[in-house]
Amino acid sequence: MYLIVVYDVDESRVNKVNKYLKRYLLWRQNSVFEGEISENLIDSMIKGITKIIKDEDSIIIYKFKVKSYIDNIIIGNDKGNTSNMI
Amino acid sequence: MYLIVVYDVDESRVNKVNKYLKRYLLWRQNSVFEGEISENLIDSMIKGITKIIKDEDSIIIYKFKVKSYIDNIIIGNDKGNTSNMI
Repeated sequence: MYLIVVYDVDESRVNKVNKYLKRYLLWRQNSVFEGEISENLIDSMIKGITKIIKDEDSIIIYKFKVKSYIDNIIIGNDKGNTSNMI
Repeated sequence: MYLIVVYDVDESRVNKVNKYLKRYLLWRQNSVFEGEISENLIDSMIKGITKIIKDEDSIIIYKFKVKSYIDNIIIGNDKGNTSNMI
């Protein structure tokens, strides 16, 4: 599976969430991670992140069967990785 | 086309980017927009946003032929919309 994970969490938890997600995925820009990952690891990632965040925080996991479904365009500074730049 | 747009821009430009993207897409959480949009509108959205941001800012547009490619999981508070919650 390919994931894009975005998060909107309280400032006090950003570093912890960031550090945790870096174990599973590639940092792309602030609050955005991406990467190839197995279903088992997705489950363990979700279990772990659920222990870190609070109810008012928000994490969206976008799951795709294959990365080829995604065409991405970068505008400005590609902070995390290179892709088809503008 | 279906888009997920994420942005990491200087604090001074966040409101302007936010207000601009609301004309095209649905706000999901801070720095994340989504929605169905035509190719023509994508082009005009990109032209406009390029005038707002500076080189150090970063916007990633994830483009999909159809929304059905995307399976999304929400952890915590679904700030922008409802989907399959955990």
